[in-house]
Amino acid sequence: MTPGDRTADWTPPAGLVAARAAWSRLAEPGDTVAGALVGSMGPVDALTWLEDAVTAGARRVLPVSVQDGAAARTLGRAVERWAPRLDALEPERDLDVLHRHGGTLLVPEDPRWPEGLLDLGTTAPHALWVLGRPDLGAVVDGAVALIGARACTGYGERVAADLAAGVGAQGRCVVSGGAYGIDAVAHRAALTTSGGTVAVLAGGVDRFYPVGNARLLRAVVDGSGAVVSEVPPGGVPSRSRFLQRNRVIAALAGATVVVEAAWRSGALSTAGHAARLLRPVGAVPGPVTSAASAGCHRLLRDGAAICVTDVDEVMELVRGPDADAGARSDGLLAEDGLGPAERRALDALPLRRPAGEESLVRVAGLAPGELRAALGVLELAGLAVREQGGWRRGGGA
Amino acid sequence: MTPGDRTADWTPPAGLVAARAAWSRLAEPGDTVAGALVGSMGPVDALTWLEDAVTAGARRVLPVSVQDGAAARTLGRAVERWAPRLDALEPERDLDVLHRHGGTLLVPEDPRWPEGLLDLGTTAPHALWVLGRPDLGAVVDGAVALIGARACTGYGERVAADLAAGVGAQGRCVVSGGAYGIDAVAHRAALTTSGGTVAVLAGGVDRFYPVGNARLLRAVVDGSGAVVSEVPPGGVPSRSRFLQRNRVIAALAGATVVVEAAWRSGALSTAGHAARLLRPVGAVPGPVTSAASAGCHRLLRDGAAICVTDVDEVMELVRGPDADAGARSDGLLAEDGLGPAERRALDALPLRRPAGEESLVRVAGLAPGELRAALGVLELAGLAVREQGGWRRGGGA
Repeated sequence: MTPGDRTADWTPPAGLVAARAAWSRLAEPGDTVAGALVGSMGPVDALTWLEDAVTAGARRVLPVSVQDGAAARTLGRAVERWAPRLDALEPERDLDVLHRHGGTLLVPEDPRWPEGLLDLGTTAPHALWVLGRPDLGAVVDGAVALIGARACTGYGERVAADLAAGVGAQGRCVVSGGAYGIDAVAHRAALTTSGGTVAVLAGGVDRFYPVGNARLLRAVVDGSGAVVSEVPPGGVPSRSRFLQRNRVIAALAGATVVVEAAWRSGALSTAGHAARLLRPVGAVPGPVTSAASAGCHRLLRDGAAICVTDVDEVMELVRGPDADAGARSDGLLAEDGLGPAERRALDALPLRRPAGEESLVRVAGLAPGELRAALGVLELAGLAVREQGGWRRGGGA
Repeated sequence: MTPGDRTADWTPPAGLVAARAAWSRLAEPGDTVAGALVGSMGPVDALTWLEDAVTAGARRVLPVSVQDGAAARTLGRAVERWAPRLDALEPERDLDVLHRHGGTLLVPEDPRWPEGLLDLGTTAPHALWVLGRPDLGAVVDGAVALIGARACTGYGERVAADLAAGVGAQGRCVVSGGAYGIDAVAHRAALTTSGGTVAVLAGGVDRFYPVGNARLLRAVVDGSGAVVSEVPPGGVPSRSRFLQRNRVIAALAGATVVVEAAWRSGALSTAGHAARLLRPVGAVPGPVTSAASAGCHRLLRDGAAICVTDVDEVMELVRGPDADAGARSDGLLAEDGLGPAERRALDALPLRRPAGEESLVRVAGLAPGELRAALGVLELAGLAVREQGGWRRGGGA
């Protein structure tokens, strides 16, 4: 599917969007039983089933696939979990609130749904409440998640801004969590680039959180990006929702890079989600004297992340190494390819007055044949020059 | 063998020390043919054989083990390589120079020879010219090589000094190369510790190189350490000898740590030697904006080194992780072990006024049974408190 296809017109079946909106309120983010039920029955039938189950008792209306004891008990507990929220359920009102904010409810059936979220399986969001560009799949294609500490340092801010601007300049979207610190810096730097930026919130998109970032998040919506959440309008950003939100960030992006993170940091949970999704994880090192880099060093030490130091290395995470192969060899000198014999011969060569082979043999500790072969190699590399029947150093080819 | 055994009296067989001194002048460091020949015949017989071979022609006096064509040619070339230095050979004079400096020629047959050097196989030094403590094996037992850039930064100096002082304080020796920058800082910080320090030079120990470090190297000799080289007195520290010297540093130490290194740096060659010897390699990260850390980041990125940020992590390289297991868990909070249900229940608990279970069920999105189980776990951890028929948050056990 090309980005072009994703923007094609698509009309959702009757009731689908409202049912998905309902499920995103009934079940907490990451509820695998809701994910499995909706996945097997479809959101509309799953909702009807739930209403019947609450009326008639879950066991009476079990789907055929979960007739055995343990699964039935799991589903029974899930119904008890969802039931208390069924009474106050008003998906159309939630959708009205969203539309008043100019938003779109994106559902997995929509061609514009980001493919990366499918990797989440039964923990995939039921829907995304989107402010800004609704063609989210196209926006986050090959995106990079840049995340990190709220309490970042000036060093972290500088690196985050550089990386975000660099990723954005290559037309790639920067995904982050809209938080203070690294997140905000990354969004801000990516805002004016062609790649744009997407903020994934832990609470509803109708109330920007944190309040201090409201202007920034508004700019993201009004720019070429989006502010999204799997939680319906009015949803409170609780700690468990923050942790679950991190899996959405990891799944939306092709790779996740942690810029600064304390030893215990939410950014490490995002890195963990990315690793479980088999997405590349990068960590930016920093001074070992900085507590704000301790989490990054922990990831590097545990082998949970690859060390990244510039935008090329970040892009290599999403693109693979082929495109950049050889870029680093520019700095090599003619001397670098020398074997031990050539190296010793080179060491023995005088800088100015040429020396004879007999003397060179003694100084270099090489056999005459070895010396001659080595001098031949050095001459080709421009590192040895024949002069007055002897040899001296050259400047390199 | 315990360190005590190593200091036991040992009398070398006649001619052994002089023959080893001779070989360390005849063959350049790392000459595998010399290593194999001396290893199979012994240094005295190998020297006699070489003298015969030069007189009679190498092929006439080949050892039985190298009668086939390729090996014979290799040995023939080696003889041509060694022969030019045979005329000027005066091992007794070299030993006199060493003794006048108060030094000792340590040979592999000596019980004080460092065991780690045996791992070098045919590239092991023929002997070590030692100023300072002759019981080198005991000195470097469990040592750490701390190496790095000559052109280091203030950050690198601070980290190198911290690590060296910490390693030394644990009674472990710091091995380095006696160069300016990181090497000098590491030697200096380790100098006054119980672990002591050993400098491995690329040239002869009779002329301290670089000259600017002469006072420091003198202090190492006079302190509880040693300055050593495999090259005899008067030997020039050529570039190829620097590269070969690095293998001795790597082999003397139980682990090698690179503190700061540019993208192209000699310290990376030492790290490579350590890796080939299957010794753990550590790299200290630094700011990505610092060129002096680019080599460390390269090692981390290539998976060639483990990220180390403090002396505990350095010690873990030499000791293995068991001794430090759990040390890092001190910072964990009671909340860290919570599952998703407990986490959601905790989020739902009010801080002050207790809430009833019915309300908690709705807020947390949990089934009543799940909520009660979660509250039980939280109560045990001191995170939930039962009050007035409801529940509120506790401060943790």
